[in-house]
Amino acid sequence: MSQLYFIRHGIAADREHFEHDFDRPLTDHGIAKTSQIAQRLAALGLCFDRILTSPLVRAQQTAELLRVAGLCGVIEELSALAPGGEVEALAAWWSEFTRGEASPTIAIVGHQPDLGLWAEWLLWGQPLEKLIVKKAGIIGLEVPAKGLACGTCELFWLTPPRFLI
Amino acid sequence: MSQLYFIRHGIAADREHFEHDFDRPLTDHGIAKTSQIAQRLAALGLCFDRILTSPLVRAQQTAELLRVAGLCGVIEELSALAPGGEVEALAAWWSEFTRGEASPTIAIVGHQPDLGLWAEWLLWGQPLEKLIVKKAGIIGLEVPAKGLACGTCELFWLTPPRFLI
Repeated sequence: MSQLYFIRHGIAADREHFEHDFDRPLTDHGIAKTSQIAQRLAALGLCFDRILTSPLVRAQQTAELLRVAGLCGVIEELSALAPGGEVEALAAWWSEFTRGEASPTIAIVGHQPDLGLWAEWLLWGQPLEKLIVKKAGIIGLEVPAKGLACGTCELFWLTPPRFLI
Repeated sequence: MSQLYFIRHGIAADREHFEHDFDRPLTDHGIAKTSQIAQRLAALGLCFDRILTSPLVRAQQTAELLRVAGLCGVIEELSALAPGGEVEALAAWWSEFTRGEASPTIAIVGHQPDLGLWAEWLLWGQPLEKLIVKKAGIIGLEVPAKGLACGTCELFWLTPPRFLI
C-alpha cells in the first residue's frame, strides 16, 4: 500500500507586505513551528521517497525544512501544486512515478483549499470542503496499487499541528 | 463551535476466550496503551463535558481510563453505542444534551466500523468506509450550532494511536 501525505505550508508573511503572493516567505514563527513539526515527523519514523512541492516560496521553504529534518533527500517542484492547480496533474505524476516504485511514500507540500479538496476527491469522489487543514497541518492517505484516482483512497491521518508539538 | 470526539476502544482479548463478545475486556497491553493515549490527550489540553460509552466491557474500560486521566468526571452509558447502533440515537442524545450546554465537547467511546460510518454520515452524508480508525484511534469533528445531523460537521482530526505516543 502506498502512502500520500499532504502537508500545508507553514505560517507565512502577510499579503500586504508583498506585491506578489508567490513571494511570501514563512515568518520566523512559521519557520520555527514548521521545523518542530518536521522533527516530530522524523521522530515518528516517517520517511518519504520524494517531496513534491508547489513552486511558491512558502511551500518551497516548508519542503526544505522537511528535507533538513531528514524526511527525504529529494525535493521536486511541480507547477500543478500552485494554488488552483488540478489534482489530475498530480495523478499523472503519480502514475509516471509509480512505474519505477512499487509502493512509494510521497509528501506533497501545497496550499489550501486545494489540499483538502484534492483529498476529498481522492476519498469520496467529490470535494465538499469538510476537511479542516491548518497551516503545517497534515493529511495522510493510503493509495491502492491501482493508483491515485477519484474515490480510490482511504484516510488514516488528519492532524492540526497543535496535536503534534 | 461544539466538538465531538469518537474514540475507539483499546486492544481487547480474543473472541475465542469469551462466550459473549459483550464481555471481552482490554488486554494488559490494551490497558497500558490506552492509558498512555488518555494521558497524552490530557497533556494536549483536551477536556470533555461528558464521556458517552458503549455498554460493552472493552468500551467501558476505555472510558474509565479517559476519566482516570482527568479528561472528564462524568461517564454515561448509551445502549445505541453498542455495535450496530444507530447514529440517529446519538443525534437525539446530542439534541437533548445541548439544550443545557451551548457548545459542549463530547467524547464517544465505541466500536468499528460504526464510529467511522457515523463520522462519514455526519461529514459527507454517506458512509463509504474511507476512514481508517485503529483501536484507541480518534476522530475529531466540529459540530455547528444547528446540531448533529447528516452532512453538518467538519473533520479536524483523525489519528491512529501510533502518532500520539
